[in-house]
Amino acid sequence: MLREDVTQAIRAAVFEELAAVGYARMSIEGIARRAGVGKTAVYRRWRSKLHLVLDLVSALAVQGLPVPDTGSLEEDLRLLYEVSARALRHPLASQIIPDLQAEAARNPDIAQALQKALREGQNSVARGIVTAAAARGDLRPGLDEDLALDLISGPLYWRSVVIRAPELPKDYLASLARATTAALKAL
Amino acid sequence: MLREDVTQAIRAAVFEELAAVGYARMSIEGIARRAGVGKTAVYRRWRSKLHLVLDLVSALAVQGLPVPDTGSLEEDLRLLYEVSARALRHPLASQIIPDLQAEAARNPDIAQALQKALREGQNSVARGIVTAAAARGDLRPGLDEDLALDLISGPLYWRSVVIRAPELPKDYLASLARATTAALKAL
Repeated sequence: MLREDVTQAIRAAVFEELAAVGYARMSIEGIARRAGVGKTAVYRRWRSKLHLVLDLVSALAVQGLPVPDTGSLEEDLRLLYEVSARALRHPLASQIIPDLQAEAARNPDIAQALQKALREGQNSVARGIVTAAAARGDLRPGLDEDLALDLISGPLYWRSVVIRAPELPKDYLASLARATTAALKAL
Repeated sequence: MLREDVTQAIRAAVFEELAAVGYARMSIEGIARRAGVGKTAVYRRWRSKLHLVLDLVSALAVQGLPVPDTGSLEEDLRLLYEVSARALRHPLASQIIPDLQAEAARNPDIAQALQKALREGQNSVARGIVTAAAARGDLRPGLDEDLALDLISGPLYWRSVVIRAPELPKDYLASLARATTAALKAL
């Protein structure tokens, strides 16, 4: 394997191993085995499994998401929810995110990497939607922006990750966008 | 120790051990050591650490919470948020809930116990508030009740457990209750 290919194989193996056994049980041995490389190949690139996972989480966040800009707050939210609902259905989200969150409760480095990933991912898109709506005069200027982000991101996360609803009813995302628009206008 | 005291000591040790090392790393040995009892004392009561944790989660849910009934949807929500915010500040919530949720992604028994605890705890209170508001005519009859529960419970969970905000601003819960009331009325 080329050096780049080895790195790629290791990254893929980490995701699979994380989803399968979780962070706490994951070992460099298991990752190397799954990637079909030696343990030294992993250690040459990352000092520990913590550094490996932090590196991956950061890389994911940087990819970012486009901010919807339809000129309508409700429509922007609906588009954000469609992208988010798809992302949350991915095993990466439904298994790995709760897992890293559990680790974050005891490991400040993981907590910090997750915060950064959130700020640069989901929250930065939601913030873009709120800022555009405020600029159009659709929302009160000077509203509590952090509370606005909680109102936007919380319900779908609760439903998908906490309640672990297997499927969303047909009009769910549209109704959620309508209700959230009303909530934001009340701030 | 009396037999009841041993049981109580083991239960307390499980919570402490869960918070300290998490479900995946927790062992019956560690629990017994923390409780100051022998391993057999644990195994005589529960078959495995899975059964122990399931039993504890179920016991917590049964305690239930009183449903606020002030005659005002917004005021009921504010009271629910005050109780929930206090509960989410407890180490039990901020460390153990994410941990069990991570386990739930791979263990259907834990997933089921958590669903049940949610249904009988947080969700049953939220449902009581929604039902009373609908009966008063404050909400549209026949609204999507599950979506209503997501709107009620999601934002504070997102802020406390996902974002892990260290403290809530002074008027946060009152503003959240106002915004959520507007969201529910839009359903």
